[in-house]
Amino acid sequence: MSEVKTKIIQATLDSIAELGASQLSLRDISARASVALSQIHYHFQSKENLIAVAANTLIDQLVEELLAELEGIQDPLDRTIRTIDFIYQKQITKSPFVRIYFELAIMSFSNPLLKDHVKQIHQRVIDCMTGKEISLSLRHPELGIYMSIFLDGVAFQTFHETSPEEINFSYQLFLETIKKHF
Amino acid sequence: MSEVKTKIIQATLDSIAELGASQLSLRDISARASVALSQIHYHFQSKENLIAVAANTLIDQLVEELLAELEGIQDPLDRTIRTIDFIYQKQITKSPFVRIYFELAIMSFSNPLLKDHVKQIHQRVIDCMTGKEISLSLRHPELGIYMSIFLDGVAFQTFHETSPEEINFSYQLFLETIKKHF
Repeated sequence: MSEVKTKIIQATLDSIAELGASQLSLRDISARASVALSQIHYHFQSKENLIAVAANTLIDQLVEELLAELEGIQDPLDRTIRTIDFIYQKQITKSPFVRIYFELAIMSFSNPLLKDHVKQIHQRVIDCMTGKEISLSLRHPELGIYMSIFLDGVAFQTFHETSPEEINFSYQLFLETIKKHF
Repeated sequence: MSEVKTKIIQATLDSIAELGASQLSLRDISARASVALSQIHYHFQSKENLIAVAANTLIDQLVEELLAELEGIQDPLDRTIRTIDFIYQKQITKSPFVRIYFELAIMSFSNPLLKDHVKQIHQRVIDCMTGKEISLSLRHPELGIYMSIFLDGVAFQTFHETSPEEINFSYQLFLETIKKHF
């Protein structure tokens, strides 16, 4: 990726972390990145597309981090539990990706231009879990949806300040179910 | 509740259903309800408070509807499963409350005035499930959090157009876990 594109994406992520995706302004990004507004339009066409590219950049980083953690682990169940735990930790610590992911979903209610981007991002997260990107080889691919349901729900609880201690009982039930049906 | 308050709340719910909570304008509500802007300020003080009252009105209606469905059912597990199924049906059909509930949560990221209201609404939903309002008498109160996590996650999947058929496998796993630990 060109240096200017990288600068624009980083400024976008910084701005979202600080103000939230719904407050994003291309003018603010242009100032943060010291890049002309016309350059942002040239490289990313629309604000929606820029947000989607920024979100996918975060996913790329997460996948890379996760693959490094999974290195050398062969057993499919071990890989799956490690993956679940990796995502769980991100959810209960409100990682920037989690925030962006929820905000985009809600923004897409009233912004049809975002809807397809958000659906793609969501599908990519599920694909990660069902194995195309991380090679989890689940026997029941539907378990990927179950994992996504539970882990999204955990993020939501966390936004409401439910503590990891309060969530832990549910997490143990969830892991037990995964192990049983794997 | 006075007639003018009821009219304002109904106009608020209509406006949210049409435009989304993030687009809510008191001017629009004033026009819809044929009520002066000053009346809205007098009765509800702030937009955040009005949204919270409207959301609680929806919960009141849902609780009333649910209590009618539970009438005559004595067995605690039966009551719980019926309650879960009631909420599940609301989630997979994107009921207005579900939409408002998620939108408010996201808006509260960047609006501290909303944060306490939203936390209260979330707590009320969990209280409903752990039994204070609906009398579910769960042996493990933590099961209420598990139910909330799963059902929030289902709503989120549904927003991304995952079909009820695709979610059904996860729902069966979830019910199995509830029955086992009830």
